[in-house]
Amino acid sequence: MKAEIIAVGTELLLGQIVNTNAQYLSRELAALGIDVYYQTVVGDNLNRLSQAIRTALERADLLILTGGLGPTQDDLTKDAVAAVLGRSLHIDRMAMDHVDRFFEGRGIPMTENNRRQALVVDGGTPLPNETGLAVGNAIAHEGKFYILLPGPPSELKPMFERQAKPWLLQHVLTQEEPLYSKMLKFAGIGESGLETRLMDLVENQTDPTLAPYAKESEVTVRISTKARTESEAMAKLDKLEAEIAARLPDHLYANEDVPIEKTIVDMMTEMGLTVSAAESCTGGLLMQSITSIPGSATVFLGGIVCYSNAMKEKLLNVPHDLLEGENAPGAVSAETAQVLAEQVRMIVDTDFGLSITGVAGPGYSERKPVGLVYIGISRRGGETEVYELNLKGNRETIRLRSAKTVLYHLWKRLKAEQAAK
Amino acid sequence: MKAEIIAVGTELLLGQIVNTNAQYLSRELAALGIDVYYQTVVGDNLNRLSQAIRTALERADLLILTGGLGPTQDDLTKDAVAAVLGRSLHIDRMAMDHVDRFFEGRGIPMTENNRRQALVVDGGTPLPNETGLAVGNAIAHEGKFYILLPGPPSELKPMFERQAKPWLLQHVLTQEEPLYSKMLKFAGIGESGLETRLMDLVENQTDPTLAPYAKESEVTVRISTKARTESEAMAKLDKLEAEIAARLPDHLYANEDVPIEKTIVDMMTEMGLTVSAAESCTGGLLMQSITSIPGSATVFLGGIVCYSNAMKEKLLNVPHDLLEGENAPGAVSAETAQVLAEQVRMIVDTDFGLSITGVAGPGYSERKPVGLVYIGISRRGGETEVYELNLKGNRETIRLRSAKTVLYHLWKRLKAEQAAK
Repeated sequence: MKAEIIAVGTELLLGQIVNTNAQYLSRELAALGIDVYYQTVVGDNLNRLSQAIRTALERADLLILTGGLGPTQDDLTKDAVAAVLGRSLHIDRMAMDHVDRFFEGRGIPMTENNRRQALVVDGGTPLPNETGLAVGNAIAHEGKFYILLPGPPSELKPMFERQAKPWLLQHVLTQEEPLYSKMLKFAGIGESGLETRLMDLVENQTDPTLAPYAKESEVTVRISTKARTESEAMAKLDKLEAEIAARLPDHLYANEDVPIEKTIVDMMTEMGLTVSAAESCTGGLLMQSITSIPGSATVFLGGIVCYSNAMKEKLLNVPHDLLEGENAPGAVSAETAQVLAEQVRMIVDTDFGLSITGVAGPGYSERKPVGLVYIGISRRGGETEVYELNLKGNRETIRLRSAKTVLYHLWKRLKAEQAAK
Repeated sequence: MKAEIIAVGTELLLGQIVNTNAQYLSRELAALGIDVYYQTVVGDNLNRLSQAIRTALERADLLILTGGLGPTQDDLTKDAVAAVLGRSLHIDRMAMDHVDRFFEGRGIPMTENNRRQALVVDGGTPLPNETGLAVGNAIAHEGKFYILLPGPPSELKPMFERQAKPWLLQHVLTQEEPLYSKMLKFAGIGESGLETRLMDLVENQTDPTLAPYAKESEVTVRISTKARTESEAMAKLDKLEAEIAARLPDHLYANEDVPIEKTIVDMMTEMGLTVSAAESCTGGLLMQSITSIPGSATVFLGGIVCYSNAMKEKLLNVPHDLLEGENAPGAVSAETAQVLAEQVRMIVDTDFGLSITGVAGPGYSERKPVGLVYIGISRRGGETEVYELNLKGNRETIRLRSAKTVLYHLWKRLKAEQAAK
């Protein structure tokens, strides 16, 4: 099955927005075993849009169109598909009710052009829009398949997941068994390091399949398999996951798509532990990433950003002799990282205290090189760990990697404590 | 002049990466007055890539190809263009030297396949790669134009800006006067509010042209004009900027593409002022955004994340009676925001103290609704301003808008002080 994704919208051609829908759909289609050979972007112009559909029909069996389903005269996707197929459009009763109820609920009069949002192609299947107004459409026509989805990602994603995917499985992928996937998340290891450790699995993959993705300071492996039933699929996926976990026990932190701070907040909540942080060069980035997780308030109590040396002394009791003087280790040192972690833990009165101090650049500091960062993890009634990092990249990358590395070591320590229980 | 952007790479079709190059190039081409009618993505496959080029030639005069210039057998863009044009490839001497020097400098042997990175199409102009190894190419052939750029954005952007754009201006846009632009940046106002205030300018625009873009909590207006000389262009742009500034004096914070925290750090550096912050619901987001600016260390000294009530009391001296008790205003209140701002300013000993306390959700807190946020700005020897915000959106959006709103009010206050001098 060959597919082409056609995104419709002049705002894409002007570069006002980036085509994230194409990425989302490509990944979803790949997971369904459908090959995407082309992605196309075309503006809100009936001729060019119709031409793009005809070109796609020469090279694909399944066309996924996004955008251009709205109420204005610029929204032409349904008109173009209907014209190419030689079919007409009609108002779908349920979709029209949905639009009517929306305006009634808000007590605002519905303007006539909103009726366009309820139009569907004759003979097609309407795809209800749970998070917006424009109805989608799925059509089978002369051996080719068409899926029409709205442009806003907040409408497109639920419609694809809950309407279009089941339709594809029922009408297009009938010969095939459904596909099941798991996302394995890794920390403290790069993409190439991970690939080396999983080389034979990657090279000899047949079923389940294995696909690594790398993002900044995070590596994800998606494992997928086709099976008649979910339990049959899970048996296969669990076996591969166990094999991977056995090889990378110190790096695999989750088997769903969550950041490591989510895993940490969940573990600490369950273990009844608390944490605080003292940040210098990251300036709050570590704390903001922990507190971005809903429910983090029971785990994270507070912390201090000590950007200046004076604040390190005043708020975190770092001895002046440690920071300044000819032979002083300085603010960017293992010694300071240790004091910061221990002091913030005692001041905020938490089980763990985290610290980061380093040179994020662009200029150096204390004659130390950009990328030199020290991180500390202090434990109530336990040892303080301090690590020296030598990071590459720009200011943003160095700050992000510093924060992610502290989180990685905190996760490892929590895991060890959990295991020791 | 009609253009088509062709991005080459199977990783795009698998959804492993998002096609930000298409957005960047579309925006740059729009600014040059070139219409992009289609964007296409195709995989690392010689037949399909050649076919995509032929399809594009039927509908565009200028083809911009990105990606597929690297050393591996999967990098086929130059081969495909050469095949379609009926030309050959040769090693460009300067590009080859550049590759050789790279490997020599690192003391690693150059493998033979890296020679591919120095290939150019016969008769084309090599475009040097200042930030990578693969040479680009610009070609004029039978009335059509081709620009070949590398895939990584860190290589593509400098090559477009410094090599491809001048080539386009010299060889393709010869009939046209060069285009000059300015980016005007606004805070404290939404896109629709801004459009309303500039409605007549937007509707009657001819020269200079006006294009608003909205990002999260930020609005940008790009004003552009064509002229024979830069000074002629700037005279026109400055006049329009002055007109816009006169209408939106409380919102226009910069005439270049910088975040408001950059403007603030620059103003405070110049004015010799310092700032600190106390954050509750934003958990460090405000401080991390200020400290993301290089050079912020002279302005931002430190701050406290007081996520729990106990920390608000202990670290920031918020009276217990204010936080807890039947008739207490609570942690999410104007009173607490005021104390937080004033206390952090005194503790860190800065000219300004900022505070944020609110309900970021998803759950409510203190029986107060999600999105209710109080922000405070305390001034040494001055009044403390407190604002109540009622924000919409998810946890991430509410936290971001809270931080951006404090920055907006700080900027306004700095501006007023600057004016009063």
